[in-house]
Amino acid sequence: MSAVPGAVDVAVCQVRVAVGRAEENLARGAAAAEEAARRGARVVVLPELLRSGYVFGSAAEARGLAEPLDGPTVTTLADLARRHDLVVAAGLAERAGDGSLRNSAVLVDASGLRSVYRKVHLWDREGEFFVAGDRPPEVVETAVGRLALVICYDLEFPEWMRLAALAGADLVCAPTNWPGPRRHPGERPIEAVQVQAGAAANRMFVAACDRTGAERGVQWVAGSVVVGPDGYPLAEAVPGGGEQVLLARCRLAEARDKRTSARNDVHADRRPHLYAGLGGGPT
Amino acid sequence: MSAVPGAVDVAVCQVRVAVGRAEENLARGAAAAEEAARRGARVVVLPELLRSGYVFGSAAEARGLAEPLDGPTVTTLADLARRHDLVVAAGLAERAGDGSLRNSAVLVDASGLRSVYRKVHLWDREGEFFVAGDRPPEVVETAVGRLALVICYDLEFPEWMRLAALAGADLVCAPTNWPGPRRHPGERPIEAVQVQAGAAANRMFVAACDRTGAERGVQWVAGSVVVGPDGYPLAEAVPGGGEQVLLARCRLAEARDKRTSARNDVHADRRPHLYAGLGGGPT
Repeated sequence: MSAVPGAVDVAVCQVRVAVGRAEENLARGAAAAEEAARRGARVVVLPELLRSGYVFGSAAEARGLAEPLDGPTVTTLADLARRHDLVVAAGLAERAGDGSLRNSAVLVDASGLRSVYRKVHLWDREGEFFVAGDRPPEVVETAVGRLALVICYDLEFPEWMRLAALAGADLVCAPTNWPGPRRHPGERPIEAVQVQAGAAANRMFVAACDRTGAERGVQWVAGSVVVGPDGYPLAEAVPGGGEQVLLARCRLAEARDKRTSARNDVHADRRPHLYAGLGGGPT
Repeated sequence: MSAVPGAVDVAVCQVRVAVGRAEENLARGAAAAEEAARRGARVVVLPELLRSGYVFGSAAEARGLAEPLDGPTVTTLADLARRHDLVVAAGLAERAGDGSLRNSAVLVDASGLRSVYRKVHLWDREGEFFVAGDRPPEVVETAVGRLALVICYDLEFPEWMRLAALAGADLVCAPTNWPGPRRHPGERPIEAVQVQAGAAANRMFVAACDRTGAERGVQWVAGSVVVGPDGYPLAEAVPGGGEQVLLARCRLAEARDKRTSARNDVHADRRPHLYAGLGGGPT
């Protein structure tokens, strides 16, 4: 059992990304992370597919923009993490050891690469470029608390958020590229509503870092949000806004207490033997 | 396979309830259902524990206010359903055949009682009065579409909403008594946010009928809401408001289409063999 974590500032760095402009994208993300560190952040979340961009024209283009886990993204983030004593989460197009391409996220701290997560629920054309992951989010014990990674569309599967929470995550870091908008006027993006519900159902923190900048005709929600265990945003992007570095003070210890009344606990109150219908079946 | 359902008006009748004033409570619910029918509703949802009230002082009081499935609640609702060709969902304190008390919901149509659901996830002191159910929501084929019942705190378990959806529910009817408020200024009740997420994650309709009227010092959220498959409210109570009959036009056929892009489907995209950790274990 680790020490109970204290309050930390968690940053989501909503930056512009342009497919194919790899070095520029990574530099933009790194600069935003530097700003977050200057403002006191200890945890920094960056978007999905930060360096490569998202809207690939072909599998060959995706492969050309992919990188291994000792490539420029992890090297750059590890340097940042070491210099500022940060925990950094970001997405990258991973060229894995077996040659497959993965839509991955990494967790890096001052000691280097701590965790790799490969997106399990693929959106739209992603299956043309990436092989889906087949492992649940891993919970990593860091200096600030227990963190887990998921990516974008994974957030829309409450099963996935629950598994991260049951594994002990205090904070789920979610690099995203939310295509959109699927928003009603005056309403939060529905993706953010799902983040709220995942946080509330599990009494944990969730930091979803979205992107901005149109890419080959695709607009983005630009709806980065950090939600607390009561399900309400602690920080959120102005809808339709541009680049933003948002900080939220998170008392991560609150995620260790799942009680909602003198007699209720959102995890203990589950009836798992009645949920068997959710698992098994086709792969 | 039944015919694809058309558009119907679904009503949530947010009425005052006072523990122990059984006949008055039932009459108030019936009057609201009559109003909904006059305004064109085909589906009417009433609160949890409509006739008995909620804040029992003792197990003996709960038992005294409970009733069998051929008692006044079902008799009254079946008469309403027959006269107006309605489908009616409501909660009641059920005195079951085995003598146990259950926090139940019934679904009644012109042919009479169609389904009984016994609340599986009990809130706060409910365990002192009721035995928890141990069966998932049943999906009932009605004249307007496929309906399922859940009750209040059940809504906060995304597993439960998913199971109702996977069983084929077009519309989940949820009698509730949301104690509260756990609301931030300017925000929806978090319970309503969870209804939104459950609807969006499953591309189905959810109609949650809350109550109003303080009871033995307990205030209520009074946050009745009908949400469509995109996760946005089609009708919702003014927070902190009093009695209200809200109607929402629901094209229930939309719930049969789980696609969200040319290549995505919120149910087909699940990875059930990776969700085994959600089921099994202790009862």
